Amino acid sequence: MRRNLFTEDHEAFRELCRDFVEKEVAPHYPQWEKAGRMPREVFEQMGSLGMLGMAIPEEYGGAGIADYRFNVVMQEEAAKALVTLSTVRTQLEVILPYFLRYANEEQRARWFPGLAAGRLLTAIAMTEPGTGSDLAGVRTTAVRDGDHYIVNGAKTFITGGMQADLVIVVARTSTDPDNRRRGLTLLVVEDGMPGFVRGRELDKMGCKVQDTAELSFTDVRVPVANRLGEEGEAFSYLGHNLPQERLTVAVGSVAQARSAIAAAIDYTKDRKAFGTPVASFQNTKFELAACSTEVEAAQAMLDRAVALHVDGELTGADAARVKLFCTEMQQRVVDRCLQLFGGYGYMMEYPIARLYTDARVARIYAGTSEVMKVIIAKSLGL
Amino acid sequence: MRRNLFTEDHEAFRELCRDFVEKEVAPHYPQWEKAGRMPREVFEQMGSLGMLGMAIPEEYGGAGIADYRFNVVMQEEAAKALVTLSTVRTQLEVILPYFLRYANEEQRARWFPGLAAGRLLTAIAMTEPGTGSDLAGVRTTAVRDGDHYIVNGAKTFITGGMQADLVIVVARTSTDPDNRRRGLTLLVVEDGMPGFVRGRELDKMGCKVQDTAELSFTDVRVPVANRLGEEGEAFSYLGHNLPQERLTVAVGSVAQARSAIAAAIDYTKDRKAFGTPVASFQNTKFELAACSTEVEAAQAMLDRAVALHVDGELTGADAARVKLFCTEMQQRVVDRCLQLFGGYGYMMEYPIARLYTDARVARIYAGTSEVMKVIIAKSLGL
Amino acid sequence: MRRNLFTEDHEAFRELCRDFVEKEVAPHYPQWEKAGRMPREVFEQMGSLGMLGMAIPEEYGGAGIADYRFNVVMQEEAAKALVTLSTVRTQLEVILPYFLRYANEEQRARWFPGLAAGRLLTAIAMTEPGTGSDLAGVRTTAVRDGDHYIVNGAKTFITGGMQADLVIVVARTSTDPDNRRRGLTLLVVEDGMPGFVRGRELDKMGCKVQDTAELSFTDVRVPVANRLGEEGEAFSYLGHNLPQERLTVAVGSVAQARSAIAAAIDYTKDRKAFGTPVASFQNTKFELAACSTEVEAAQAMLDRAVALHVDGELTGADAARVKLFCTEMQQRVVDRCLQLFGGYGYMMEYPIARLYTDARVARIYAGTSEVMKVIIAKSLGL
Amino acid sequence: MRRNLFTEDHEAFRELCRDFVEKEVAPHYPQWEKAGRMPREVFEQMGSLGMLGMAIPEEYGGAGIADYRFNVVMQEEAAKALVTLSTVRTQLEVILPYFLRYANEEQRARWFPGLAAGRLLTAIAMTEPGTGSDLAGVRTTAVRDGDHYIVNGAKTFITGGMQADLVIVVARTSTDPDNRRRGLTLLVVEDGMPGFVRGRELDKMGCKVQDTAELSFTDVRVPVANRLGEEGEAFSYLGHNLPQERLTVAVGSVAQARSAIAAAIDYTKDRKAFGTPVASFQNTKFELAACSTEVEAAQAMLDRAVALHVDGELTGADAARVKLFCTEMQQRVVDRCLQLFGGYGYMMEYPIARLYTDARVARIYAGTSEVMKVIIAKSLGL
Repeated sequence: MRRNLFTEDHEAFRELCRDFVEKEVAPHYPQWEKAGRMPREVFEQMGSLGMLGMAIPEEYGGAGIADYRFNVVMQEEAAKALVTLSTVRTQLEVILPYFLRYANEEQRARWFPGLAAGRLLTAIAMTEPGTGSDLAGVRTTAVRDGDHYIVNGAKTFITGGMQADLVIVVARTSTDPDNRRRGLTLLVVEDGMPGFVRGRELDKMGCKVQDTAELSFTDVRVPVANRLGEEGEAFSYLGHNLPQERLTVAVGSVAQARSAIAAAIDYTKDRKAFGTPVASFQNTKFELAACSTEVEAAQAMLDRAVALHVDGELTGADAARVKLFCTEMQQRVVDRCLQLFGGYGYMMEYPIARLYTDARVARIYAGTSEVMKVIIAKSLGL
Repeated sequence: MRRNLFTEDHEAFRELCRDFVEKEVAPHYPQWEKAGRMPREVFEQMGSLGMLGMAIPEEYGGAGIADYRFNVVMQEEAAKALVTLSTVRTQLEVILPYFLRYANEEQRARWFPGLAAGRLLTAIAMTEPGTGSDLAGVRTTAVRDGDHYIVNGAKTFITGGMQADLVIVVARTSTDPDNRRRGLTLLVVEDGMPGFVRGRELDKMGCKVQDTAELSFTDVRVPVANRLGEEGEAFSYLGHNLPQERLTVAVGSVAQARSAIAAAIDYTKDRKAFGTPVASFQNTKFELAACSTEVEAAQAMLDRAVALHVDGELTGADAARVKLFCTEMQQRVVDRCLQLFGGYGYMMEYPIARLYTDARVARIYAGTSEVMKVIIAKSLGL
Repeated sequence: MRRNLFTEDHEAFRELCRDFVEKEVAPHYPQWEKAGRMPREVFEQMGSLGMLGMAIPEEYGGAGIADYRFNVVMQEEAAKALVTLSTVRTQLEVILPYFLRYANEEQRARWFPGLAAGRLLTAIAMTEPGTGSDLAGVRTTAVRDGDHYIVNGAKTFITGGMQADLVIVVARTSTDPDNRRRGLTLLVVEDGMPGFVRGRELDKMGCKVQDTAELSFTDVRVPVANRLGEEGEAFSYLGHNLPQERLTVAVGSVAQARSAIAAAIDYTKDRKAFGTPVASFQNTKFELAACSTEVEAAQAMLDRAVALHVDGELTGADAARVKLFCTEMQQRVVDRCLQLFGGYGYMMEYPIARLYTDARVARIYAGTSEVMKVIIAKSLGL
Repeated sequence: MRRNLFTEDHEAFRELCRDFVEKEVAPHYPQWEKAGRMPREVFEQMGSLGMLGMAIPEEYGGAGIADYRFNVVMQEEAAKALVTLSTVRTQLEVILPYFLRYANEEQRARWFPGLAAGRLLTAIAMTEPGTGSDLAGVRTTAVRDGDHYIVNGAKTFITGGMQADLVIVVARTSTDPDNRRRGLTLLVVEDGMPGFVRGRELDKMGCKVQDTAELSFTDVRVPVANRLGEEGEAFSYLGHNLPQERLTVAVGSVAQARSAIAAAIDYTKDRKAFGTPVASFQNTKFELAACSTEVEAAQAMLDRAVALHVDGELTGADAARVKLFCTEMQQRVVDRCLQLFGGYGYMMEYPIARLYTDARVARIYAGTSEVMKVIIAKSLGL
């Protein structure tokens, strides 16, 4: 169905992204999968093309255009080529907002040029072993010692943790037994700080071109100058960005589901079973028609949410609905498309297999489907 | 999620509809269900309030505003009150378009005032016993005899057939063995014409406030002046209005699913099981959250389609996608909501039971889900 | 798949049932649907054929064979003919067990001959307005007064309540504030006892050939001689029979789903769409293949449960699993089959429409799917 | 639910298997996953324990007991420990039957001892690039040349192809343009025969402890003495074993789904979210209850099929039903269980992630779900 979200500027950016993905990403993707990451120079290439700094003020090397739709375009073009852009999505949509919103002048001058240029890679360290996404359970501590915080603790499931130059660590600076959500602070730990150790790289089912790490912090001295925002305010900071975090997952889900359909159409037209193209079976037609229908519903819902987000009016409950629907839809659609590939769908050399294993995390991260339902139910007065 | 489809005019019309439905429809609905129809005077009331003539030119007593969104508003307000407006939907969205588009000056003068005023009720007779919705199979004949056509044949599944003053009959005026879609003509048969007999009223699972009839035509002499449009052109006329027919089903499906959720929220908050409000069980919350999510996806898709339709750009394939998704969604949602009512959900005095039995036809009429998939698959090049 | 549940005796009984259903039930079923019940004389016919007294001792006119498989056979044969046997199922599988297990000698002599002969029809009155199936909430009271209990209260959702000669009423004979499950007693209220009034007959979505009634009791004097079992023990009596109550629902669900498939196969082979038999479309084949697969899974599970039940070893949790699976399966299968009928599937004259509206209650009564899940989860140690 | 399939002998064998799996398989499984196969010495261990030769006549070192239930037991015990036994299943259930049924005396003497001892590993090479499972499309040729066949062609998707000592190759020995199913012959190609080259090892989504290979044959001289059965009869040979091939997949599916539930119960009891054990949420309970229900339905269906198979009465259509139901069930159940693990479910170190990626092939190999539906539909007369 015809969309009405984008302007000419977005379409120009789309061409740039498409071109970049085709030439610089797709051909190398299988190697990156083996390596478990995208090379640093590719981030820098993206930086030099202006793909990483759209939202960063011009004075720091960015474009100064805070328009979420550029992020949408980038994800869509990556998905169209059946790849991802590694941790770029996390960097731009989950992490950068904290820098943009809470960095002071000095921090901006120090970090923004590197972020825009793709020289500084980032991660955010929230989850701890055993506590999941429950911020109230954060046990990593940051004890003030003059101009520094002394940070101790362990984090896990950190996307991009192995490559990150800057890690935003959620640490507890004080304990209020009545309100365990208070007392959390954001500190930027830098590569090379003594006591900051990158542990195991976790072996995930999919999403192979982005590392997921365990990080540990032993008496790491983090300058107070590396604190993002106010002490003790991290809980509300983190909550504020959640709708966008969920929206970005949905953007990926819809774009990847769409690509799965395109791949399945191509495959089934080409491939014969019992002497007939698989695409000519009514079952194939009906499966793909059903998938296409689901994607269009999700796209309409998503585009509505993106438009609301651009206007600053996307509620947490609506973001939850969009994430829930789009990720569950992605699973159904990718699964049905894979089935049409027969045995080839199980082979990792076929991108549909990658789409399938990548998809499974979408219903889990940035809040599971169950957490989304909790949020939605509350909004219904239940 | 915030919608962006309506203007102040639509909202004013919405109030009028809501008021009318609350006062003139809802209280009487159980009786109408028993009677199997809405009384003629209610149609006339709607006519006098301007609800039936929005799209009819002012000179004939209408408002001259051909804006599909008024139809959407009317269906939404009926659904909100857990009722339907009987055959009004069919009249306005399926039948009136043929009059508006193909009636000549003389016919307009003759019929439009009555249509606008709710004095003339209508039906369209396409389906024949044994042929379903396959127009190529139409066997009702209309043989030219001077200024008349002699019509012979039988029709079934005719919504509003018992009450109709004017029945648009799809009849075969010529036979091209190579192209059975050619040679169909629209003739307006009037109540009282000799040989026009209303047969059985079909006993449907739901949709009790609109009759569904079998009609038969034996040597009915229909004046050529009652022909709508050109002889032999009915096939393309009928195809032209199909997207709107499907859209209107989807409008009803989304609105009724939404009402089912509202009813279930009310019920489960009130009703206790094992000493606790049913709404407080996590299962209840999750079920309703899932339902709400589906409805919002459908609403976004539907609103996008309505906007396209208002712009004259809704394709047949997109209308098919919207009908498929919204009607299947309706079924899932109404079923899940009904389940939360326990035994009461099975009692016809609870509107949820009516919503359930009404819903089942939505995946069937105006083209089954399977026909929708055929159309969608074609649009995918399959 | 080949079943291994039945012996020659069952197969002989099957022929008797089939013959009876074909001749005495199927031809009259549409009238009974309109009447809302099966005529009393048909119960007596069944009695004289020995269909109602299999489990009743020979001395009272029964066959003295307590073998649950005869009940299975009877339901299967009714379903095969696309009918039900009205309240016979409830009578034999839900109510009779209380008589068989708890009636004393005098009661046996008084009631068993009539039960075996189909002269005495029965109902059981548990549910009360507002409390659902939660026995702890029973508010109907029975106060001892010499040789009588004085019964006051109201019951609803009483299957067969309009026709019943004997109604087993669950009443509270004492109140233990710490254990509201204690103090319930079974009393047999007889037709004609002063103060026993049959109220509204509830209008259900389906199951039209069995009435569902509201009953009220105002100072009804019930002789102590009409008490079934011990005073205060009803809670455990009722719990004891629950597995069989659930099993019998599952038996009906599987048999009716199987019939829906048979009906759909017949219909789609006969019916043409666009010039081709509907059965020749791959979608039709795949839908029916999927349905057949589900029914066979359910049948295997059910037969295993029946065999366990015959051996007295069916657990409550397994009965819950069987009810949950078979009733949910029935819904899916009947819905898919109905869809293959197109518009005809929505017409009550087609048995598939009746199968559909009948099916909806199966997931609700004898414990909803949600209650089943609660029971199953407990058995998993959750 | 209580099963009735096994005797004491099976239970004794079960203990042996359980013990073996616990000690010799589970601790090493992660290494084997990395290596992509199970070491040869483990096959030999299994051989020496009698696990590979149950069905092989005693004179050749087997136990001479052709009872399919031992295979069931072995798979169940592997699944219980959350592992597989690599290619053993294929060897015993797919390949060994051809040897048992078609090997002549000389071949038995030559190969059976090694098969029973686990010294000879096997594979069967049917599928060719581009033709899938359509035997009519086999293009590998075997041209008779005196005492040899000259084999040329390529095969793909060969389970165990890298390790196999003996490969049964399906080759075309003659071409009948009217019946492409005729003219296929089974030839045993041995490791080391000139022209027999093992190509790429395919990178699969899961099933990491068994290799899947491409094999090529260039002028391989295979002695006529290595022909299994008659020339030209392979098509019927292959068809004969298909029900068992499908049954064995179903056995694994049910056993693995059961293990997924057990793993999820353990995990959710242990794991807390927001301060409460995940197992205490109603959603968790309901999800696991639903999963348990599905597994019990599948188990009952499967056990019925196994009993029929032991009696030699399992039809192809019933085998198709069982495979379809059990593998689709496995997918649903494993997916739901994984979801309860949250982020950990996406980490390959948690066996649930392996169960998930392993599961996806079950709906594809040994005939896709779609092929099963074709077979089932035929049996319904469609």
